[in-house]
Parts: sequence; structure tokens; C-alpha cells
Amino acid sequence: MKYSILIAPLLLFPLSAAAYVTSVASPSGNISLDFDLQADGRPEYKVDYKTRPVVLASGLGLELADTPSLMSGFEIIGTDTLSFDETWEPVWGESSHIRNHYRELLAHLRQRDTDRLMDIRFRVYDDGIGFRYEFPTQPNLVYFIVKDEHSEFAMTGDHVAWWIAGDYDTQEYDYTESRLSEVRGLMKGAISSNASQTQFSPTGVQTSLQLRTDDGIYINIHEAALVDYSTMHLNLDDDKMVFESWLTPDAQGNKGHLQAPCKSPWRTLIISDDACDMLSSNLIYNLNDPCAYDDTSWIKPVKYVGVWWEMIGGGKQWSYTFDLPSVKLDETDYTKTKPHGQHPANTENVKRYIDFAAEHGFDQVLVEGWNIGWEDWFGHSKDYVFDFVTPYPDFDIDYLNEYARSKGVRLMMHHETSGAVRNYERHMQAAYDLMDKYGYNAVKSGYVGDVMPRGEHHYGQWLNNHYLYAVTEAAKHKIMVNAHEATRPTGLARTYPNLIGNESARGTEYESFAGNKPSHTTVLPFTRLQGGPMDYTPGIFEMDMKKVNPNSQGHVNSTLARQLALYVTMYSPLQMAADVPEVYERFMDAFQFIKDVPVDWEESKYLAAEPGRYIVAARKGKGGNDWYVGCTANEDGYESILSLDFLDPDKKYEATIYADAKDANYLTNPQAYTITTKKVNAKTKLKLKAAPGGGYAISIKQL
Amino acid sequence: MKYSILIAPLLLFPLSAAAYVTSVASPSGNISLDFDLQADGRPEYKVDYKTRPVVLASGLGLELADTPSLMSGFEIIGTDTLSFDETWEPVWGESSHIRNHYRELLAHLRQRDTDRLMDIRFRVYDDGIGFRYEFPTQPNLVYFIVKDEHSEFAMTGDHVAWWIAGDYDTQEYDYTESRLSEVRGLMKGAISSNASQTQFSPTGVQTSLQLRTDDGIYINIHEAALVDYSTMHLNLDDDKMVFESWLTPDAQGNKGHLQAPCKSPWRTLIISDDACDMLSSNLIYNLNDPCAYDDTSWIKPVKYVGVWWEMIGGGKQWSYTFDLPSVKLDETDYTKTKPHGQHPANTENVKRYIDFAAEHGFDQVLVEGWNIGWEDWFGHSKDYVFDFVTPYPDFDIDYLNEYARSKGVRLMMHHETSGAVRNYERHMQAAYDLMDKYGYNAVKSGYVGDVMPRGEHHYGQWLNNHYLYAVTEAAKHKIMVNAHEATRPTGLARTYPNLIGNESARGTEYESFAGNKPSHTTVLPFTRLQGGPMDYTPGIFEMDMKKVNPNSQGHVNSTLARQLALYVTMYSPLQMAADVPEVYERFMDAFQFIKDVPVDWEESKYLAAEPGRYIVAARKGKGGNDWYVGCTANEDGYESILSLDFLDPDKKYEATIYADAKDANYLTNPQAYTITTKKVNAKTKLKLKAAPGGGYAISIKQL
Repeated sequence: MKYSILIAPLLLFPLSAAAYVTSVASPSGNISLDFDLQADGRPEYKVDYKTRPVVLASGLGLELADTPSLMSGFEIIGTDTLSFDETWEPVWGESSHIRNHYRELLAHLRQRDTDRLMDIRFRVYDDGIGFRYEFPTQPNLVYFIVKDEHSEFAMTGDHVAWWIAGDYDTQEYDYTESRLSEVRGLMKGAISSNASQTQFSPTGVQTSLQLRTDDGIYINIHEAALVDYSTMHLNLDDDKMVFESWLTPDAQGNKGHLQAPCKSPWRTLIISDDACDMLSSNLIYNLNDPCAYDDTSWIKPVKYVGVWWEMIGGGKQWSYTFDLPSVKLDETDYTKTKPHGQHPANTENVKRYIDFAAEHGFDQVLVEGWNIGWEDWFGHSKDYVFDFVTPYPDFDIDYLNEYARSKGVRLMMHHETSGAVRNYERHMQAAYDLMDKYGYNAVKSGYVGDVMPRGEHHYGQWLNNHYLYAVTEAAKHKIMVNAHEATRPTGLARTYPNLIGNESARGTEYESFAGNKPSHTTVLPFTRLQGGPMDYTPGIFEMDMKKVNPNSQGHVNSTLARQLALYVTMYSPLQMAADVPEVYERFMDAFQFIKDVPVDWEESKYLAAEPGRYIVAARKGKGGNDWYVGCTANEDGYESILSLDFLDPDKKYEATIYADAKDANYLTNPQAYTITTKKVNAKTKLKLKAAPGGGYAISIKQL
Repeated sequence: MKYSILIAPLLLFPLSAAAYVTSVASPSGNISLDFDLQADGRPEYKVDYKTRPVVLASGLGLELADTPSLMSGFEIIGTDTLSFDETWEPVWGESSHIRNHYRELLAHLRQRDTDRLMDIRFRVYDDGIGFRYEFPTQPNLVYFIVKDEHSEFAMTGDHVAWWIAGDYDTQEYDYTESRLSEVRGLMKGAISSNASQTQFSPTGVQTSLQLRTDDGIYINIHEAALVDYSTMHLNLDDDKMVFESWLTPDAQGNKGHLQAPCKSPWRTLIISDDACDMLSSNLIYNLNDPCAYDDTSWIKPVKYVGVWWEMIGGGKQWSYTFDLPSVKLDETDYTKTKPHGQHPANTENVKRYIDFAAEHGFDQVLVEGWNIGWEDWFGHSKDYVFDFVTPYPDFDIDYLNEYARSKGVRLMMHHETSGAVRNYERHMQAAYDLMDKYGYNAVKSGYVGDVMPRGEHHYGQWLNNHYLYAVTEAAKHKIMVNAHEATRPTGLARTYPNLIGNESARGTEYESFAGNKPSHTTVLPFTRLQGGPMDYTPGIFEMDMKKVNPNSQGHVNSTLARQLALYVTMYSPLQMAADVPEVYERFMDAFQFIKDVPVDWEESKYLAAEPGRYIVAARKGKGGNDWYVGCTANEDGYESILSLDFLDPDKKYEATIYADAKDANYLTNPQAYTITTKKVNAKTKLKLKAAPGGGYAISIKQL
């Protein structure tokens, strides 16, 4: 790690703002940030990109519930600047090395009337900025309650945005692409039904928010290092085109309980005139603290299959019996009930998946529905809903784990909490101990439905504390966590790399419910994937849901080739081949790509990208020389010439191209694909066409 | 255990109410209960005592939040009756054997329009009644949310009551004695300030509620077996003189989440024309389930001293330093702070207490303030407030526990949670493990201040679940629990006898703050002690607080002799000699009574009692032949002839009488006492006088 520090002299008595350093530019000078105080002493900032405004003068500050607010009446009492440049290595990721290079301005403020201190730290990167509030140890501000944060992001115009409705409890909405001025009118249609949802404003949206100006500047707004704080949404003033932070309330309507010394999360803007820079940026990880663990040898990316789509797509059950309207975990005797026979989490079936995984080189088999309690788990605000340790009578946990081990495979644990968070914490040690006992090292957790304590929200400070607690407790057991329905990630996996995934967006399961927009995966990397990977669980080969479940009307809005591409375009250290073995067995040639594609990367390049239209990414597998390319496109498809100039100029390769057939179409002809093999090198250019809602996937293996 | 069962034939089709058994009388016939349906099908009951009405027709039912209520439209579809008679032995108590003898009526109801089933079970004892709602397994009622319970208790007149304000968070109020019609006007003055308090009605009161009719009938209203339900208060309609149940809300305003099959707690009425029967009744324990533990050998009553009054009375600190406005448990280094020197929980001082305990035969030494975090523990809604395992630098936990063991004494643990209940549960295993490691077997826990999760109340269903969880988890470690600020007990100690105490009322600490009414301890056994013992911590010998803390204006409103009597009149298996050793050393002759008095009893008799006036109790120590008598009186004092006819007629005894001196007075001359010794037997009558706010204590040892 190398760094250089330039510290401006600290002044001992407050002078006018002009006497302090109040500008800071990124290392290349591309991005510059100015900080100032408004006439009433409210702090504000603005950001230019290549000398043109990209964020107009935007106010900062916090409104407090129980004491005078931290909004105005400030004076600058000092500023520090420094430059920082280090390269660090993530435990897993899109590349093996990440450079963290920024210039920093730390403004020390004092509120005159109250003699309270507040610092604002700005870091300016070549691809964006981050800022956060810091509250030093001080006599006049120790415990305080946040009524709301008022961080503004004043836009220069009526930009195009890719957005979902602001909501305290879910992100599982399709994205809407519209101008900011249209958000209000489109909000109603943007909200589909969900197990737990709470909107707050007709112009409220979630982060990360992707924008594009008419000048072709891309802006992404999000947060980094969300610890011990409430999740930030953005509320748009659609007269002025100004976004303002809007935090998630607790059961009493307050938005945060803080204790100085403390800091807010970073508020981040990724800025570039190249859409690909949105996807390749590491700004959010860079703003997070370094890895907190001494030993990370137990953290390994995972490729898995699982007993899941049979229920989600196939209409089978997590539960064991229809006999029980009401389960009392300590009293119900399942051996006295009549199994309904639609329970795929049974020993024989799981054994099949283990065999399939072993045969095709998968690491793990997820099993949902293995544990008692599923008969009445949902929608009842049930407290003691699961115990996380007792299997159903037809799931032989001893035998299956032993069998898996004998085949070189592990089972993956599933902890659906049903939002009953106190219950989960009460059982957490026993649940993690059970995993240790049987050799599970990864758990998919879920928080479906309204959370308990009742009145709290999925994205509030109380639950954010819990999600991190589950991760740090898991680390004591060398367990990796993939938390669904939790708060969307904000780069914490740099600090806690056993947080290997979240869902926290509309995933593949929705393809079976209502379908996702064919453009969905051309938006997600711009929005949801900022801050951390998504367990999107792609790899569905049978698009016609009626063939999977006679009662279903659903359709997976994707071609088969695009499903392969997602293993490249949707970066994740956790990748599921989500369909069922019987379906894969019909398409073993295409399935080969999923078997080949790595889950950890040496290097990644985004070759072409436009939110809502297409993404083309190329990645080099870690510890090897093979490259993988993926393209996902919206309903217009995507044609391009793909240059392979990222390959090593001295090497020869064989490319296998899995592409949409000429007449492929996500709706009418999704399973039409071609597989072509050819010798390629760094000079090769491939003419490739993704069908509507289609894509292509290419493995390029060094010869 | 002997019992006889008489079951009335179950009818297979609903008939008019007249066709069912709808009356049940107590075994002696003293008390009779009638059950009926009102015209709209609402269930109701009434109670007669010695053929005269004591509870007029009173409606029953539950109002639900999310579905049609369970208030009306019922028909009776069956009734069962039985008689039950057993004698059981409590692990600790006022007597070694308790008879549980009742007649029961179980009414099976069906709500016509909804086809839902509700049972009401009535048990009628010679000294009162209990009833509860039961919801059998059924298809049309599984999960339901209670908006409120509407159980009425229609009084026959404007009775005199001893009451405290209904409050979702505290019971620490002085009692008011007034007619029911006066409650409204006196409510404001009945509410003193508290760390956490939430009243709900100008005529709302708490249970247990003690009443006396103008005909001299005593009635006590309370509940038994409060498990997985919200605490009941009573709201008075002061036109009709009807009390109605008023449950404690959760953060969303709902009052209970239930899952059939389930039952409500018992609503209890103790009824007699003899005030002493209020005190000797075991109705509440009898309605609770038998002991749930196989092994109870580790549960033993405790007599203790402690590092506590030095802070409460003496003005010293729980904290260690004044340097820290803000503590972060994982970051703060106490060795770098300046100790303020007012921290009595230090090794040398605790050693003194251990020596004192060992010298005078006490079992344990409580130490409050032993653990880090006290500098900012209160009033900040702080989540991670204590870790329950890390001592201050000046408390040598290893040495002190070893030293205690060497002297045949144990330390008593202290877990102040500051209401941060999730934090307590996260640390509970480690906290109990630490206790195991060092040999602690009893913990005083506290819930001072508003509870977290924020928005919940001390007495709501969520916290009631927690309090019991803490007790059952403690049992796994063979640990006894004394929970302050928790919900007042409802007889659960029969089922979970390691719950050896609660505070949950205004205790001795208030003598140092504002003083308790001199009549307070003549009311508490009628009110607070129904349902379980109170850790009242008597034994204060220095009444003038200015002598203890120069900054204090306080005065302990009691004579010294009465303080001794409380060890008899305030039954508890946990008894503290609460004053400091230096004070006791000035009154060693009086202190002898505290040393002698047992904490567990073979037999108890209440010889004279009037709420708010006086109580005289006599108890025989378990496993011996010695008797102890105590009298507590209000500001009028109490003169009487005490007959010792409870003594064994064949035995001779020596009585030591600790009495108020002639001119003693709780306010002006509290420490004036006399100690007289005389030979007595069953024929002896003693003329005794308690001073205003005074009492007497007598040890009667067999010769």
C-alpha cells in the first residue's frame, strides 16, 4: 500500500470560508468538488465533471428529533486535505487487485449557537465522489436522534433515470426508465404487489439510482458502508430536480439513534461520460473499511444447484403436509401427519441433486424446505416460526451430508426467518452450530414478510444492525452468508467478505411469478449491483412455465443463450444453476458453459453498455488464462462487432460461442440457440447478434 | 395428589342455555358462579359470595383487529364440570404444602356466523374464582390479533380501593386509598415521575387491585399464568362501577398476536369477608401449571447483603469515572481514565461485604456496578449498553469469587439491561456462562428506562415473552432470577421456581428518593404480593438520609422495629439486609432478628390484617419448630393482643420481642426500639403496640 499525504495547515481560529481549502479535485482532475457554507451557515457542495456542473449547489445536514438540528449556523474551523493511493486485493471479486486512489477534503465545522462539532469528509475519485458526516467526541453532542438526513443531490436537468419506488421493505420491483419529471405520473404503475412493502412518497426512489443526462453523462447515486444507520432512499423535488436523502423510520417514526463519536455512511456519486465506467467502478468498495478478518481462507466462491425451482417454478411445496393449519414447533408431531407428497426436500430427491452436482462439478446443493415449520410460516406475523435445526421426517440430514461429502459436494443451508428476527437471533448459535456439525459452510437466509419486532422495517437501523450481526456471528463459525430480502449491499463485503451475496432486488423467481422485463438484466448491474453482488440465480432453460407447472401462466422473459450470458454479466461469487437437472439434461451442450464459467475473476472489462439496452462484459478467470464473455440485451436485441483485443497478444485460444439462433426471441422462440467453436486470438473480431431479450456467452480457452 | 372428577354429559347439538350446566359452586358452597349468554350472544358471568352478589352480570369476550370480534353471537354447544382436589409442595413458599381444591365449569361456545369456537373455563375455589379463554384447534380461527380484551368485573357499589395508576411501563407508585368514584379526581396526584411510564386512562388502574365493599367483603382482582399474552390492567367505568380489562399495546397499537390452540391467562378474583384470607390465599399459584423442571435441587432461598444502598442511599456511583460522556464498550479503555473514587463495587469494599456476610450467616453478596458501561447507561436509548461480562478495572472478579467461596458465601450477579432487551438476549449465553464459571447462581436483573425494541412497553406481550425466556434460559444454567422492572408476577413461579423474585412495585429504594407512605407495606401484600414475592429489600436502620448522603433530604418512613417485621410480613424467598455494614454494626442487637429470620417456611398464618392499616403474620421456619411474627402498621400505629395459640401446645418457647419504644415514631423517633425476652407457650397472649409507621418482630424459638 503506498500513499502520500498532503495536509493543509490547520487554522486555530475560524476565518471566512474563503480562507480555507474548500475545493478538491480527483487525481486526474476530471472531477472537482467545491464545498461551502450557505448564507445561513448550512453546508453545501457541488460537483463538476470535466469542468461542467454535474451536481449543482446541494445542501447538507441532519435534522434532529430531540435537540436543535445540525442544518445551519455552522462555521468552518478547519480543513485538511490529503491524497491517498493504494492497491488492495479482495478475497473474491471481478478483479484480483483494486486501486483506491483519491484526494480527500475533511471539513471541520462548528455550529455557533450550540458549540457542536460536525465534520464532513469528501473523497474525490477519477470516477466519482463520496462524502459522509462525522461526529467527533465532544461534550455538547453525544446521543442524538435523527429525524431525517437532508443531503441534497441537485441535478442539472430532467435526466433519464432507471428507478424503482422508494420503499422501506422491498426492492423487488421491475425498473422503470423515464425522465425525472415523469416519475410522479408513473409511480403507481411501478409498484407491484409484495409480501412486505411500504412506500413513502409519490416521487421517492431507491438507491442505487442510475441517471443519464442529455449530454451523455452517467451518474449513479448510492451509499457505501451502511453500518449502524438507517437505509437511505432519495426523494425527488420534481420542480427543482433535486434529490434529497430520505431515511427509513423505526417503529416510532425516528430515523436513527446515534452516539458520538460516529459517522454516517458515505453518500456516493459515480460519474462518467462512459456508461461502462458505471459498471467497472470500485468506488463503493474503496470507501469501505479494509477486511476485518485475519483469516479468510474459509471464504470461497460457490457454484451451486438446488432444490428450489421445483417449488418456485414447479409449484411444489416447501411444506410437508396439508394436515396442519397451525404448527407449534415444540408440540407438532410430523410423524403423525399425512405427507402430501409434494415435498422435494426429501432424501431421495436431494440425493439426485447431489449426484448431479458431483457429476457436473458443482460445489454445493441448496435445499429449501428441509426444516419443520413451513406449513404456516407466511403471513401470520408468527414469532416462533422456525427453529433452524429440526428436519422434516423425510429429510435425513445425517445421511445426506455424509453422502454429499462422499461425492465431494456440500449441502447449502437455508434459514428462512419469515422476518421473525428475535426468533432467528435466539436460535442463531444453535443454527450455526448445526451447520458446523454437518459441514455446511454457506447459508442462504431470508426475511420474507413484514419483520418483527413489529413496526420496524426491513431497511431501518434496527434491522441493518441485525443483518451485520448475522454476518459477524457467522464468521465465528467460518460460515458464508447470502441474505435475501435484507438491505441492498453497500460494499460491506470488503470489510466482511463472508457476506457473499444478497438478493434485495427482483430476481429470477419473479420470472416464474409475473415475468421480469426483458431489459431487467441490462439495468441491474447499473443499479442493484453497485455495492455488492446479487444472488440472481440464473440458468433457467425452460421458459414456458406451463411445462413446469400446469397451473402456471408464467413465461421466463429471456432466451436460453442470454441465461448463459448472465453468469458473466451479473457478477457474483455465488452462482446458481437454478433450473432442475431434468431440464439441463435436455440441453447438455448449452449447459457446458455453466459448468465451465468460473465464479472468481482475475480481471474484468466492460466492453459495451447502455442501461436498459445491453451489456457486454469480458472476464478472465482467476488463476488461469481463459476468458469469458457475456452479452445481455433488451427487447430490441443487440448487434455488434466484438473485438477480442483484451486477449493476451501472444496466446492462441479456442472460443465456444453460445448464441441466439437467427430466429430466437425471448417470447416466441427462446430456446433456439447455436453453439460454434473457432480458433481466436487478440486480433479476432466477432460479429455477434443478441436476439430480443437475448444474449450470447463465449468461453475463450487458451490453447 | 388425589382428585375426583365429575363430568357432565356432553350434548351433541346446541340447546338453549338453560339446558346446560351454567352454575358452579365452590367446594364449600361459599362462592357460586353463574355463566350465561346475553341476548346478543355475548358470554357473561356473575359471582355470589355467601348468597349475595359480589360481581354483577359481567360481559366477556375479545375484540379482534383483523377479523370479526369474539364478543357476541355465541351459542353454548356443551359444558363439562369436574371437581379437583390435590395437595402439592412448592419448592419454596409461605407453606410447605398447598391444597388446590376447586370445582370447574368448562363452557364450549360456538360463534354462529363465523363457525368459530371459544371455550371459557371457570374454576371456583372457596376463596375465589378464576376464568380464562381457550381457543381450541379449529379451521376457522388460527392466527388472530387482539385489539383488546373485554372482560368485565361489575362491582356492586362504590367500593374502597387500594390502587395505582394503570401504566404500560411502571408500577413504582405509592398506593392511593379511595372510593372508586374518587379515582378520576385523584389520578393526577397518584402519578409521580418515573424513568419509564405510560398511563392510558384517567380511571385506569393496575392489578392486583384490592377492594373492600361497605359490607366488609374483600375482593382482589388479578391474573394468573401470564404467558405469551399482554399484561392486563383495569379500566373503570365510574358511572356503572364496572371494571373492564385493558391490555398493554405493542409498538403498532395491537394488544396480542395469538395462535390457536392457545389460552389467555386466568382472570382471578379472591373473595372473602376476612381480610386475612386475601393474604393467605393460594388461588393464583393453584391456577398455574405444576413445576416444569425435573430437578429443582439447585433452587434455594437466599438471604443477602449487597453493594447497593451505598449508591441508592449514599449517593455513590455505579460508574467508575466521570471522564467519559460516551462509552463504546468495545473501544473504551477504562485503564486510561481517572477513577472518581466513588465506586463502591471495588475489590476491597466487596471483600468487606463478604466478610460481613460470612460473619453473620448471609448466603450472598449482591454487587451492583461491577461491570463496564455505567457512565452513560441511562436515558439515551442506548442499544449496546452493557456486555454483562467485563468488570471494571477495580473489580477483581476472579479473586472476589474465590474469596467468597473460601468464606462460604457467593456473590450475586447483577444484570442491568437498561431496557435494551435485544442486547441482553445477544449476551445472555455469555452472561450466564460467566456466572457458571465463577459460581454465581442468582442474578438480579433490571429493565430501567424505556425498553427496546423502541415502541414496545415493559408490560406488553413482546417483553413478557422475553422475561420468561430469561428465566427458562437461566434454568439451563441452574441460575435463579430476580427481575426488577419486569411485569409483576402472576404465579409463574409455581411452574418456573427459579423465578425467585421481582420488584415491579415501589420498593425500599424509593424511601431514599422521595419516601414511601408509612402505610405502604400494609398495602403491598394485598396488592403487589398476589402472584409472587417482591424483592422489597428492607432492613434499613438509618432513616435520616442526610446522615447517609449529605446531599439528601430523604427520610425512610419507617421505624427500625418495623423494618425487622418486614422480613415476616413481606414474604419472599429472597431477602436482603439492605443497609450498610457500618450501620448494622451500631445496632447489632436488633440486627440479630434479621440474622435469625428464615427465608423459607413450613407454615404461615395471617393473624390480623386490614389493607392500609396493619398486618400481623406468623410463620414457622421450614424444617424446624421456631416461629416468627411480624407486624407492620400505618401512621396510626396498631395496638392489639397477640395470641400465640398457633404454637405447638406441647412445646415451650423463648420469644424475643423487637418492638417500637413507647415514644417511637417513623418520622420523629424511628430508631427507638426495645428488645425483650420472655418464655412463652401456646397459651400466651402478648399486649403489643406498633408505633405510627412502626411494627414489631418476634422470634419464638423452641426450648
